[in-house]
Amino acid sequence: MTRKRYLTDDGIAFFRSVISDENVIIPDENNADYAKDETEDLFFQPEIVLKPATTDEVSKILAYCNDNKIPVTPRGAGTGLAGGSLAVNGGVSLSLERMNAIINIDESNLQVTVEPGVITEVLQDAVKDKGLFYPPDPSSKGTCFIGGNIANNSGGPKAVKYGVVKDYVLNLEVVLANGDVIWTGANVLKNSTGYNLTQLLVGSEGTLGIVTKAVLRLIPHPAYNLVMLVPFNNMERACEAVSAIFMGGITPSGLEFMERDAIDWAVDYLGDVTIPIEDNIEAHLLIEVDGNDMDVLYKDCEKINSIVEQFGCGEILFADGSDQKDELWKLRRNVAHAVKSRSIYKEEDTVVPRAELPKLIRGVKEIGNKYGFKSVCYGHAGDGNLHINIVKGDLDDETWKNELPKGIKEIFELVVSLKGTISGEHGIGCVQQEYMHIAFSKIQLDLMRNVKKVFDPNGILNPGKIFDRNYTKY
Amino acid sequence: MTRKRYLTDDGIAFFRSVISDENVIIPDENNADYAKDETEDLFFQPEIVLKPATTDEVSKILAYCNDNKIPVTPRGAGTGLAGGSLAVNGGVSLSLERMNAIINIDESNLQVTVEPGVITEVLQDAVKDKGLFYPPDPSSKGTCFIGGNIANNSGGPKAVKYGVVKDYVLNLEVVLANGDVIWTGANVLKNSTGYNLTQLLVGSEGTLGIVTKAVLRLIPHPAYNLVMLVPFNNMERACEAVSAIFMGGITPSGLEFMERDAIDWAVDYLGDVTIPIEDNIEAHLLIEVDGNDMDVLYKDCEKINSIVEQFGCGEILFADGSDQKDELWKLRRNVAHAVKSRSIYKEEDTVVPRAELPKLIRGVKEIGNKYGFKSVCYGHAGDGNLHINIVKGDLDDETWKNELPKGIKEIFELVVSLKGTISGEHGIGCVQQEYMHIAFSKIQLDLMRNVKKVFDPNGILNPGKIFDRNYTKY
Repeated sequence: MTRKRYLTDDGIAFFRSVISDENVIIPDENNADYAKDETEDLFFQPEIVLKPATTDEVSKILAYCNDNKIPVTPRGAGTGLAGGSLAVNGGVSLSLERMNAIINIDESNLQVTVEPGVITEVLQDAVKDKGLFYPPDPSSKGTCFIGGNIANNSGGPKAVKYGVVKDYVLNLEVVLANGDVIWTGANVLKNSTGYNLTQLLVGSEGTLGIVTKAVLRLIPHPAYNLVMLVPFNNMERACEAVSAIFMGGITPSGLEFMERDAIDWAVDYLGDVTIPIEDNIEAHLLIEVDGNDMDVLYKDCEKINSIVEQFGCGEILFADGSDQKDELWKLRRNVAHAVKSRSIYKEEDTVVPRAELPKLIRGVKEIGNKYGFKSVCYGHAGDGNLHINIVKGDLDDETWKNELPKGIKEIFELVVSLKGTISGEHGIGCVQQEYMHIAFSKIQLDLMRNVKKVFDPNGILNPGKIFDRNYTKY
Repeated sequence: MTRKRYLTDDGIAFFRSVISDENVIIPDENNADYAKDETEDLFFQPEIVLKPATTDEVSKILAYCNDNKIPVTPRGAGTGLAGGSLAVNGGVSLSLERMNAIINIDESNLQVTVEPGVITEVLQDAVKDKGLFYPPDPSSKGTCFIGGNIANNSGGPKAVKYGVVKDYVLNLEVVLANGDVIWTGANVLKNSTGYNLTQLLVGSEGTLGIVTKAVLRLIPHPAYNLVMLVPFNNMERACEAVSAIFMGGITPSGLEFMERDAIDWAVDYLGDVTIPIEDNIEAHLLIEVDGNDMDVLYKDCEKINSIVEQFGCGEILFADGSDQKDELWKLRRNVAHAVKSRSIYKEEDTVVPRAELPKLIRGVKEIGNKYGFKSVCYGHAGDGNLHINIVKGDLDDETWKNELPKGIKEIFELVVSLKGTISGEHGIGCVQQEYMHIAFSKIQLDLMRNVKKVFDPNGILNPGKIFDRNYTKY
């Protein structure tokens, strides 16, 4: 199938007049840099890649594309897990990679103003130098951009105590579809002045506007943390322990679940980490506490210890040295890579109220048995956010193609019946649209579609995402 | 001026068929219960008051009003400070007072499901019995409703550490203008599934839909707190101390500012509280720290002590007994009543980044001098949220009427120049609309107006609020 072409010579000349030639790229078969992200095996080549460096350049590009009805797909670092940055309808891939300045770290107000192309870990390190903390860090923190994090309302392991991206975004500079530039709110912690456009933009996956600056809230960096790796010989019991920890009055700064295969495969994948795991262990919880008083943290760990023991845990690995803590977190952060390096896979980003995790994991295994697929589960259990990696392994192509969607549909139906939803932190992008009707009725979806029309009447911003899959895989 | 009448005998009969007769009230001159709130001297009599008890009843009422283009003004406890619950265009006052059930306290998920008519303090007490905490509590917590708190994205003194209402709302059941009922999201801590309708509804002042159920996040209740009252002989220095405390790595659970008159008048108003205040004191900070370890709290207080000393504070009153702490908070909570009992007044709910507070308070006093009015300032300084009460006192009516609006405009221009905005927690309602253009451009306001049209094409929901003052005071 041939895609519609949107660009003319005049258009290309216009873009070259706005940004210098080397920042206008017409990709060919030798350049797939902008055709992929980290989502499974998707490949969509944009017609043209534009790399503006200023808000004004973004504005001019959008005004032109809006007038000429050219699709514009904003792109961060390409670390997304739902295909959100892929130009599924062709047209322009708008890369924010050159807008990567940390504009101002305002220590007196505990705020930072950044451009969207700043790498999350670069931001974290820069503010940590001043004793400050920007908590939300997806596993890809070393490469992903703040802009992409905002577009997807990303989470990460710290969310359980500190919240997700939306909880840190105070104000956004946004270029609208027609090129108009607005700020969504004010640089304040409390705001009851009109509708919350800031929160409407966060998580909207680049479909309502292009974020060109963000004012983020910072907090004092906690001085200490301690990490525990807790094995369980029953994965449902591990999940039950999760909500018990919170009910015990503890709010850990990390509470991760890893099924046996997840940790085994990560150990294999890394090659340089050794963790003693007994044969009968089905799952682990990785638990971190942080704060400014070490005595309090030791007390918290003792309390956690006494709670997890009630759920039949094995011998706890307790890490207080930074090498050992880093190693455990490295293991956790590499689970996804490890799983993905093993097999063709499909990842689901389910989230439920945390006490429903035992029901969710039991259901996932039952559905897998019914349709003949294997899953490896891990994720931010403290938030109820379970990543379900369905691995193809030896499964035949026919079953994979025909049975898998039925199984995924049942998983999502289960999730919604547990008062959860279909994406906790990855977004819908172009891979989960077909399941949106499980989470939302037509009434809800129409409200969202009509909000989209208010912001982007010509439908140029990231078309084919969230709602309607109006394109063909090719 | 005569207002348009919207109701017919058929309409009244319809409402009586949906809800029982005693819950349909046609108010007359002897019944002003639904014509006022706590906003200055506003008075708008609704044509009819309806008190539904179920979501289904709300749905039927809205569907009828939408079909017949009858204005519907939702009403909580009537404690609002911006006239948001007043039926400025007549029509229906929809009181949610009978929908006051705490439906479920879910201890295993740290969530509570409530109806909108639950009194905030009743909710706080109910969850505290289970060791849980719902932090956002406006000064009116003993009478205000959760529904009104959600409509206004209320704050209160705990917001400085724990955030505002929006940070606790996970999911809302909402009746739309046409009677359709939706949930805005899911009962989860993380959500990247479509647009954030939940956050769009929070703070929308009943203009987008009527909240009929809310799922709120809870946290473990902190075990202890300590309170300090810190006097300063210079109010700007008091404001400077505020951001210094945060920069010192402390996040207090309360950080309130009270100008001298505020505390003096509150002492007079209450009559039963005695606080020693030296003659040269211009302002106080009321500071609370909380947590689960008393030793840590004492250390925090020592640290705060050493910080505020650098800003020339006087002798600190330190409260660790519950009577003394209650007395200090009672004082703070009664400042507004005290100020309002003294004089005709106009209250502004400004918010700026907290380090800008000294500039704000200096500017407010200068603007007051320029136009000849006196102000008494107090508020949630830790959030940068300063309530400016302009008191009429002996000012002549002419100056009050003609000069005051100019002064308020200048205050808001100052606030916005400091990257703040015109309402931190009270909302815009029907008293601040004329200043919205200072905070927002036409582009931003048009986006909001068009979002409103998506949700409420006939404009029946709380007309005359937030945007356009399409009514006459009568």
